[in-house]
Amino acid sequence: MNFEVEKKEFLKGLSLIQSVAGRKTTLPILSHILLEWKEDSLYLTGTDLETAIREQLPATIHRDGKGSTSAKKLYEIVRELPDGTIHIEKKENHWMTLQCGKSVFNLAGLDPDEFPTMPSYREDFFSKILIKVVREMIGKSVFAASNEESRYHLNGVYFVQSKSAGREILRMVATDGHRLSLVDREGRLIRGLEKGIIIPKKGVMEIRKILEDRDGEGDMELYFDQSHGFFRMGKSLLVIRLIDGEFPEYDQVIPKGNDKKLVLEKEKVSGSLRRVSTMASDRVEGIRFSVKDNTLELSSYHQDFGDAREEVDVVYEGAPIEIGFNARYLIEALNVIDTAEVIMELKDEGSPGIIRPSSSTDPTDQLCIVMPMRI
Amino acid sequence: MNFEVEKKEFLKGLSLIQSVAGRKTTLPILSHILLEWKEDSLYLTGTDLETAIREQLPATIHRDGKGSTSAKKLYEIVRELPDGTIHIEKKENHWMTLQCGKSVFNLAGLDPDEFPTMPSYREDFFSKILIKVVREMIGKSVFAASNEESRYHLNGVYFVQSKSAGREILRMVATDGHRLSLVDREGRLIRGLEKGIIIPKKGVMEIRKILEDRDGEGDMELYFDQSHGFFRMGKSLLVIRLIDGEFPEYDQVIPKGNDKKLVLEKEKVSGSLRRVSTMASDRVEGIRFSVKDNTLELSSYHQDFGDAREEVDVVYEGAPIEIGFNARYLIEALNVIDTAEVIMELKDEGSPGIIRPSSSTDPTDQLCIVMPMRI
Repeated sequence: MNFEVEKKEFLKGLSLIQSVAGRKTTLPILSHILLEWKEDSLYLTGTDLETAIREQLPATIHRDGKGSTSAKKLYEIVRELPDGTIHIEKKENHWMTLQCGKSVFNLAGLDPDEFPTMPSYREDFFSKILIKVVREMIGKSVFAASNEESRYHLNGVYFVQSKSAGREILRMVATDGHRLSLVDREGRLIRGLEKGIIIPKKGVMEIRKILEDRDGEGDMELYFDQSHGFFRMGKSLLVIRLIDGEFPEYDQVIPKGNDKKLVLEKEKVSGSLRRVSTMASDRVEGIRFSVKDNTLELSSYHQDFGDAREEVDVVYEGAPIEIGFNARYLIEALNVIDTAEVIMELKDEGSPGIIRPSSSTDPTDQLCIVMPMRI
Repeated sequence: MNFEVEKKEFLKGLSLIQSVAGRKTTLPILSHILLEWKEDSLYLTGTDLETAIREQLPATIHRDGKGSTSAKKLYEIVRELPDGTIHIEKKENHWMTLQCGKSVFNLAGLDPDEFPTMPSYREDFFSKILIKVVREMIGKSVFAASNEESRYHLNGVYFVQSKSAGREILRMVATDGHRLSLVDREGRLIRGLEKGIIIPKKGVMEIRKILEDRDGEGDMELYFDQSHGFFRMGKSLLVIRLIDGEFPEYDQVIPKGNDKKLVLEKEKVSGSLRRVSTMASDRVEGIRFSVKDNTLELSSYHQDFGDAREEVDVVYEGAPIEIGFNARYLIEALNVIDTAEVIMELKDEGSPGIIRPSSSTDPTDQLCIVMPMRI
């Protein structure tokens, strides 16, 4: 016997690694999980060469060692095992034997030394940050990142730190060229964020997943070097290869002269947008947005199905304005605003609109920009 | 205004029709839903020419009429509407206007007279049956039906009625050639079932869906003619075109001389099968089933991943026997047996096995047959 581990712990670790292990099929070892057992811990590692996850689990170790086996198969097996202790023994030719209750599995393996080395990290470089701050900033930005592979420098979230009035401000920004989302939060100094880095969307999703059932009042630790981001949450370590590209000069995109200011009730306008967008054309999802005299009229037209129109009360007393928008972009922007009232700032039919929470005192505390479209 | 209907009722009716409307795209009208309003009801009809569903909803009718519009689009729209009354008016050129609160939709339509006519039914032919009996019989049989399009006469559930000891016995049987499931329940005489009919699997699934949130103690009504089955549940009417083919002589498949009888604990053996099947080869899912001296040993082998072995206590004192089975077929058979103890009857490694509930007094109350396989 080499080591023993509890099923529940093992399953939790394996499930967190599933999404990265086996994502790349270029090398057989990448569909494997690396198991290393030493002192009083079992370490599970999976990687797709862009994101690597390492989980540390409590285990009873009888003899140090390591092995590798199919991440998917091991997960399927452990998921079906009854709660209890799992015994694992290393065999010849990189095989392992897993025994639990009356079940015995012989698992084919590869040489664990073939497993890609995880980038090494410096213990003293980590800074703490509240989990809820990271979760909130990701939630308010990542949806706007691009999914187009050709625009790889937009396939992630730009993360940067600056000083404002003596406070350290963390900022996340994402854009796909048609809309942009930006969020600022106060935080402590984080190593490597001075000049801004881009975390790929997939990596951001992994951070989110690992944070899912953690207590928001708790801390996580992180830092960045030239090429990687290092994230530590409890016994999980995540290393993400950063996107090597220039994030656009987003500051220039933020409109300055949007003098037509509407106050909207978020839930009401969201509902109207969802209804009217059912008749928007499939490809562009465009709707017409007309405002005058405290009334917003949303309308759409689909060449096969018909048309839709709805009025919503808003607060607006400026000159009438009519502008086309992608309905989904507006809905997604409203979704990440927490206040019941939302401010929308427009200029004219050819200029981007700004959406922000009504209570934001700092003009860049949070904002979404949506480009207009011809309808 | 032609009629008014409550959003909740309308949505429920539309959602039940979604799965048949638009399934066939050969004719544009088949992606539509037929709306007919007369007296105090709105009738919604959808069909894929094999299954037709008609829903009757309470409505306030101002002027009788009918119309057709995209089933999918109408569902998407109504789903997003706030609770309340929906007003619909027929316009020129088969268009309809839908208005609810401050929303107005103009819906493109086709000539409702183009909509396929639903087979007509005879009110006096219907017999009552308990919903829970239908639900149970479907649940215990349909999983074994074939999905292979080339074996269309096996793509459904055979439904037949016979008299046994003065009682009317309803029987459902399904098989894909590798396994068979049969269930008998007492019932009243149902028109058209004397010589047995085959309900296609898709139709069976529609019955199941419509029964989903009904009270099991309630009744439904049904009868069959040469070509169709008619099912009425509350305000829903389902007409299913029957499979025109001969169901195999399944009686000949039921083994008679299976003298090796095991008693299994269902949950225990199910769990073992799930675990051991993780190492079964992907294509055939075969596992080895060996019994001797009150012990069942399950084992499997996968050429890439390794092997698995597990022992389970059973009640068995006959001669040792070793036989190959598809693990999934065994798991699915155990799933539809309600008793904690299950009887399994085997003969030899080349003969099919029988699985049945332990409490069944009648030998054909419920049984599953699984063909053996070479491992």
